Amino acid sequence: MSAVAEGALVSVVAGDPADPGVRQRAGAWLTRVFEPGDQALVRWVGDTGPVAAVRSLLAGTAPARFVTQAAARGEDRSLADLLTAARLGARLVVPGDDEWPTRALHCLAVAADRQARGTDRTVALVPPLGLWVRGRPRLDELVDRSVAVVGSRASTAYGNHVAGELAAGLWSRGWTTVSGAATGIDAAAHRGAVAAGGATVAVLACGVDRAYPAGHAALLERVLDDGLVVSEWPPGSAPLGHRFLVRNRLIAALSRGTVVVEAAARSGSLATANRARELGRPVMGVPGPVTSALSVGVHQLLRGDEPARLVSSAAEVLEEVGRIGADLAAAPARSPSPRDELTDVARRVLDACPVRIGVPPERLAAVAGCAELDVLRVLPVLELHGLVERVAGGWRVTRDRG
Amino acid sequence: MSAVAEGALVSVVAGDPADPGVRQRAGAWLTRVFEPGDQALVRWVGDTGPVAAVRSLLAGTAPARFVTQAAARGEDRSLADLLTAARLGARLVVPGDDEWPTRALHCLAVAADRQARGTDRTVALVPPLGLWVRGRPRLDELVDRSVAVVGSRASTAYGNHVAGELAAGLWSRGWTTVSGAATGIDAAAHRGAVAAGGATVAVLACGVDRAYPAGHAALLERVLDDGLVVSEWPPGSAPLGHRFLVRNRLIAALSRGTVVVEAAARSGSLATANRARELGRPVMGVPGPVTSALSVGVHQLLRGDEPARLVSSAAEVLEEVGRIGADLAAAPARSPSPRDELTDVARRVLDACPVRIGVPPERLAAVAGCAELDVLRVLPVLELHGLVERVAGGWRVTRDRG
Repeated sequence: MSAVAEGALVSVVAGDPADPGVRQRAGAWLTRVFEPGDQALVRWVGDTGPVAAVRSLLAGTAPARFVTQAAARGEDRSLADLLTAARLGARLVVPGDDEWPTRALHCLAVAADRQARGTDRTVALVPPLGLWVRGRPRLDELVDRSVAVVGSRASTAYGNHVAGELAAGLWSRGWTTVSGAATGIDAAAHRGAVAAGGATVAVLACGVDRAYPAGHAALLERVLDDGLVVSEWPPGSAPLGHRFLVRNRLIAALSRGTVVVEAAARSGSLATANRARELGRPVMGVPGPVTSALSVGVHQLLRGDEPARLVSSAAEVLEEVGRIGADLAAAPARSPSPRDELTDVARRVLDACPVRIGVPPERLAAVAGCAELDVLRVLPVLELHGLVERVAGGWRVTRDRG
Repeated sequence: MSAVAEGALVSVVAGDPADPGVRQRAGAWLTRVFEPGDQALVRWVGDTGPVAAVRSLLAGTAPARFVTQAAARGEDRSLADLLTAARLGARLVVPGDDEWPTRALHCLAVAADRQARGTDRTVALVPPLGLWVRGRPRLDELVDRSVAVVGSRASTAYGNHVAGELAAGLWSRGWTTVSGAATGIDAAAHRGAVAAGGATVAVLACGVDRAYPAGHAALLERVLDDGLVVSEWPPGSAPLGHRFLVRNRLIAALSRGTVVVEAAARSGSLATANRARELGRPVMGVPGPVTSALSVGVHQLLRGDEPARLVSSAAEVLEEVGRIGADLAAAPARSPSPRDELTDVARRVLDACPVRIGVPPERLAAVAGCAELDVLRVLPVLELHGLVERVAGGWRVTRDRG
């Protein structure tokens, strides 16, 4: 069972902004009051700091739209939510916590930055304000080597079989499966992981105390044996329709790549694949019979202008996520000079970064001679290595580089 | 029933080399004496002319290896072969004949040229010396808009269904299916075309009078209702093992693109796909369940470094062959200046061709800024448009360009 941190018991107004418990309480307040995916809000909270942001919202000194929205949500339920979560064995993880999946979610920060500059007009790719997490493992560790396996609700026996085999095969190679706990492929993926004795992460569009669909209560209990149930919404939140698309971006962001197992034409799971692509993550598809309507969407994905990679096994999935993930992820620990272990593209982008003023990704792409998507892929890695930094106007080489 | 041309009745030694019948008789002689795919021989016959080549072989003045090979084959059976063919309703088509599929086979001439320069070490991609053709339609017309549909002998019901549907769908859009009349996918493709009332071309590794496998005698009869049975070997020739790979290059060359429907890992039908790729023709694959061993080879093809295009319908096949074929093919008839209707790549390659000395395709690729394979794709088109010509050392702009 999780406990509520001491600092969270005092009000946000009274506590020390540096106290993790107070930050947690502020995070609980914010996730209850605001729907995730509001780019302006997340940016403002990031600039202000969550505790100061809540205080300014309560004092009415925050931007008017945010104050109005906050006031409309009524009384402060943050402590009640934290206590409810603790009773469930759940906790709220907020930016700055050790458990916060910084590397995974960094792509959302980059995407948000890109959207703010108006070069992109898709679903808001904005980092979450906090994540309600139920289960024992650490979220950051579990998603560090994870793959999203998603697909149609109306899956076939073939699709369910393949999703389950993939999840089991990923686990046997030390990788976690992330999915959305929906009927069909999602459930088959979670079940495959659980059956293999593996940890899996279910990312919900409702509170971590709710089972949606209701028939999946037992499945979610099994997921919690070794894995995690995660949500951006506080306990008790309902799975409202618009929340699924918002949730999908989180599935794409938390994992190193997304595999679509079965999807009809215009299936919702294709949206998750599109989010993954926008975040610079590998997108993969499992083919099926061309006579199956449930494979039409996957085949479209595999035929597109920027075709997804065809995969037929966990080994092939890891071959693909390894292209982006493995080499880059392992670099900082292994090498005295991170630069030596950068990929070709990363090195070119680094060389393209100016020393003084920051330049936007599209400029870097032009100078480095690569696609803007490649730039967006490697910038987070370069930043985590401390090689580049984001300043007004874009990116530049870190000034105090060792 | 075909008739034997008058000139063919006189001996090759006595006849006029310009007489089509004499050329046909020389072709019959050559296809009986030499196995196809001998690059040096085909080159020598091309340089010498078939009638003069046969005379020099009979006189013993040809290169020693060819003379020895010819002598080992015993008596002249050319007239007997032509008469046998005529009894079957078959004929021999040789280079220079109206029916010779010049455009289709031009890729083999280019590939042979490339191999001669040692940049390629695959199965000999050499044009045939002649084609024994059984059936009513003109070969050149039937293959002008054709697609090869090939696959495993040990196909599944799924594969057979898809192959048949593809062939029927191609015919309904005015396209012919080319295949090898083998058990499994080949037969299903021919049957699909025949059942749709369409013409189909069966390219055999034995004489056009033989059914291989024997159980396909009835199928080949149905193919002959509206289509063609084609072979490089004279009537009576046996389907020797090595002939299948040689035959496969012809299937790839005659058609505008090759679709593999089902193939196990390392299946022979992947060889046809590789030949098509080497000839610059689009390679396509129909996916299937990843749980099916018969789709493993196709999925490998769709995942390769130069992945084949995933197709799930005749419409998607034509979308793919149309990329290379349709626009280029239609250009000469429609436009007063062929240059105006060239694709981007073709125009760049044309611009890269020097006026005086010929340069090899790899140089053209470097200058035009495209892949060598693209250059090899467009050179035949440019040559048929009379825009470029092949000279010693490679290609240049045609001198007497209008």
